Amino acid sequence: MIDMQKQPDYRNIPIDQVGIKNLKYPVRVLDRSNGTQHTVASINMYVDLPHHSKGTHMSRFVELLHSFRNDLELSLPTLSRILVEMKKILGAKSSHVDITFPYFIEKTAPESHSPGLVDYSCRFLGTSNEHDEIDLISEVVVPITSLCPCSKEISTHGAHNQRGEVRLATRFRKFNWIEDMIELVEQAASCEIYSVLKRVDEKYVTEQAYNNPKFVEDIVRDIATALNRDDNITWFELSAENFESIHNHSAYAYIASTKEGIVAGA
Amino acid sequence: MIDMQKQPDYRNIPIDQVGIKNLKYPVRVLDRSNGTQHTVASINMYVDLPHHSKGTHMSRFVELLHSFRNDLELSLPTLSRILVEMKKILGAKSSHVDITFPYFIEKTAPESHSPGLVDYSCRFLGTSNEHDEIDLISEVVVPITSLCPCSKEISTHGAHNQRGEVRLATRFRKFNWIEDMIELVEQAASCEIYSVLKRVDEKYVTEQAYNNPKFVEDIVRDIATALNRDDNITWFELSAENFESIHNHSAYAYIASTKEGIVAGA
Amino acid sequence: MIDMQKQPDYRNIPIDQVGIKNLKYPVRVLDRSNGTQHTVASINMYVDLPHHSKGTHMSRFVELLHSFRNDLELSLPTLSRILVEMKKILGAKSSHVDITFPYFIEKTAPESHSPGLVDYSCRFLGTSNEHDEIDLISEVVVPITSLCPCSKEISTHGAHNQRGEVRLATRFRKFNWIEDMIELVEQAASCEIYSVLKRVDEKYVTEQAYNNPKFVEDIVRDIATALNRDDNITWFELSAENFESIHNHSAYAYIASTKEGIVAGA
Amino acid sequence: MIDMQKQPDYRNIPIDQVGIKNLKYPVRVLDRSNGTQHTVASINMYVDLPHHSKGTHMSRFVELLHSFRNDLELSLPTLSRILVEMKKILGAKSSHVDITFPYFIEKTAPESHSPGLVDYSCRFLGTSNEHDEIDLISEVVVPITSLCPCSKEISTHGAHNQRGEVRLATRFRKFNWIEDMIELVEQAASCEIYSVLKRVDEKYVTEQAYNNPKFVEDIVRDIATALNRDDNITWFELSAENFESIHNHSAYAYIASTKEGIVAGA
Repeated sequence: MIDMQKQPDYRNIPIDQVGIKNLKYPVRVLDRSNGTQHTVASINMYVDLPHHSKGTHMSRFVELLHSFRNDLELSLPTLSRILVEMKKILGAKSSHVDITFPYFIEKTAPESHSPGLVDYSCRFLGTSNEHDEIDLISEVVVPITSLCPCSKEISTHGAHNQRGEVRLATRFRKFNWIEDMIELVEQAASCEIYSVLKRVDEKYVTEQAYNNPKFVEDIVRDIATALNRDDNITWFELSAENFESIHNHSAYAYIASTKEGIVAGA
Repeated sequence: MIDMQKQPDYRNIPIDQVGIKNLKYPVRVLDRSNGTQHTVASINMYVDLPHHSKGTHMSRFVELLHSFRNDLELSLPTLSRILVEMKKILGAKSSHVDITFPYFIEKTAPESHSPGLVDYSCRFLGTSNEHDEIDLISEVVVPITSLCPCSKEISTHGAHNQRGEVRLATRFRKFNWIEDMIELVEQAASCEIYSVLKRVDEKYVTEQAYNNPKFVEDIVRDIATALNRDDNITWFELSAENFESIHNHSAYAYIASTKEGIVAGA
Repeated sequence: MIDMQKQPDYRNIPIDQVGIKNLKYPVRVLDRSNGTQHTVASINMYVDLPHHSKGTHMSRFVELLHSFRNDLELSLPTLSRILVEMKKILGAKSSHVDITFPYFIEKTAPESHSPGLVDYSCRFLGTSNEHDEIDLISEVVVPITSLCPCSKEISTHGAHNQRGEVRLATRFRKFNWIEDMIELVEQAASCEIYSVLKRVDEKYVTEQAYNNPKFVEDIVRDIATALNRDDNITWFELSAENFESIHNHSAYAYIASTKEGIVAGA
Repeated sequence: MIDMQKQPDYRNIPIDQVGIKNLKYPVRVLDRSNGTQHTVASINMYVDLPHHSKGTHMSRFVELLHSFRNDLELSLPTLSRILVEMKKILGAKSSHVDITFPYFIEKTAPESHSPGLVDYSCRFLGTSNEHDEIDLISEVVVPITSLCPCSKEISTHGAHNQRGEVRLATRFRKFNWIEDMIELVEQAASCEIYSVLKRVDEKYVTEQAYNNPKFVEDIVRDIATALNRDDNITWFELSAENFESIHNHSAYAYIASTKEGIVAGA
């Protein structure tokens, strides 16, 4: 049976990334409180393809993933091993993984201490180059409460507030818990979000937000300030989006790191 | 060339609905202020298929739509004509159209009177049966501001509020403007939404919402009360969803009409 | 601290469903091969609200869910217990849960027997009424390959084929494995879908689909035939959607059960 | 009334982009065949914010857009004017617009010449810097048919094929019709897509795809070859994604321009 993918190619065009996209897979993720947690990921896996090869072997990506089946833990060592293996089994010089998954943290309500889980969308982006150097970006999307400083200032009572979403991608020197990045973001919000809030808690979060008004501009600046001070963070990219309660569009702010560290890839 | 769809079928199973789904098409819609407006729709078109026919002719749905190309106005007469034509060209007893589109209304800010467009997601669901009776449901999805009565009551300052979305489907006796249904919903919100708000307007909407707290329960009840009083409305289905600013999930309430009118189809 | 939700209401309008929507939660599901599997669900929980009560207590839904935290297994006994508890803690006459989650099945490729996971979107809809009767609907969304009989018949070589999606909701007498419903659907496709296919397998699935052409009409009819024969199934609702490879819209067919069993709720 | 946004800021952190996101607006777009066409856009508008300013004035973005209300034509002169105006009214050094919209082209079926509209998702990304230099990227997302060369080669009959999606972003010297970019992509597919296909046409597209098998790798390479030859294109970024009919995940390939032209921004 002929191997079409192995045929020579004469167009002289190397391909930057080729592979599989949007594969759903159950995974385990390191959990600061419980060791690991089970979740479900959407996975992209790509390698480069040299100009002289017609195609890559798509089934090998899924086979590789499945070889980890009983232990697919998204730790740095496992991701590194997957990135190196991908290059080996596909004869490539570079490899990329892009893994998105919901992550759950148990939080207790601020006054009643009732426990509940909050979900965060997280993402690991890994790349390995021809020198087997691994570049890892970790991203969290954090739902928050934001309360408008302008609305508070000009209004006799109340202030418009809304759910917002902060997206923070970081590169770092040594291992960084997802939980640490989430907490850093939540401290910059008007108030953090919970899944269970009894009346005493609802009073607390309402007043906390009212006493702590923030524009999207304030939120990204406060997070950037904290990240700039943190030597473990070598690069970041950061946005805040408010699903405005008074409009049907969002308010948005974005800051890219000016740290003299590693420069962001694609 | 054989016509596979025309072949007989011996499984003895009629099909309720068969056709095309999720076809994007530019359309015009009747506009209370401007006559008509241009928008883009996502369209489903189905007919029934008797037990003895193998298949329907999918291309005829799009041909029919395209025959209206230069005048595809989503008025009641045009929808009725499409429903009747569908049955004719496909030899069917019943026909269904399901058309969703964004609709824009120019609103002026409450104090500065600055104009801006607000977008609403609208939907027409039409059915024609074997007696050529037309059943039409008109649906609007209206973004609103809602402010929590409990949070206001128990907090020293402020009250959590958020963007919400009210979905209202109605059957009616005589023609009903989309704008009328939207206004009816907006009057039941803590405050309506605008696209342009200057500072004087932001003060207004903040205070308006604060003075007008509503649970999702209140919103659906106030709308249901108005609909129950309106003799032109023969049936409705209604939900309110708040994208809670203090949670990462929604609060939701739903009421189905108890009017003794026409009963809702599937 | 006043309990706003407990206040009387004078609008005289009962609410059919009120509660929380789109809460993400980690769950375990019964797995025919492995006992249980871990996955992540999106959960809606509603109760009715009598005309005389102002509001429901939203936090209790999440508290109830969290009380199962260490053992939230979506089995029929657990769902029944949740439905009954919801009514109790919220003083309601009826309760509803609506839970959607990805589910994974390990399949081996047809010739090479290489293993891989395929993901299916599943859903449990449960209702409990004032007599504590539980009504449960189980739904699976199954990705399939479909190959067009007309295209095969009229073309010298080849036939257009594409990914399709079959949605099957069922009511049943005694416990039904998700896997059984998925297999029933896959047997009605031109070919079933895999995550790992080596070249020998790709030859197999290509030829299998070519030898087994099916319109969306054929797919829903073949599934309906199997369901009509199965005494354990008391009701079903069924659609097939093909993401046509030759169009940018879908072909669609839908059959609702005519079984003389329990009639579907809203 | 105090202007909170105008207050000084002492955190010393400039913000790269701040503004409004996901505003829906009706627009007109230049149309090669018909002069212009009406469609509906989703719009993001951002400016930079210097380190010493607390906030930007969000309402001015929508006011600016609304000032074009009766003539919001997404031509290069209009986009340039919007970009320059944004900087002026917000006192900014740089401005960004990001506009996504469906675009319709009437195509006639290859044999029957039946007409129908095909929808494409298009996007304009514009930036103006402190020297009033305008940088414009034009993007098209083109649905296509792709047929697998490996499946065809190894199978006795047939070959798996599916809908795919090519995303092509370009920078160019002089004005480029959306239609030209779409045609360039469609010529690299196994076959292009239509909305109306009669039986003679279905035979044509089936055989055309069968005679023209393409991996995602082939598609991006053939497009890259054409773009490399075109002196008007100074930069491109290009991906092909196949919604595999035999899997529940996609095959994907990506090429970034190596042209010595302008380098892509973020």
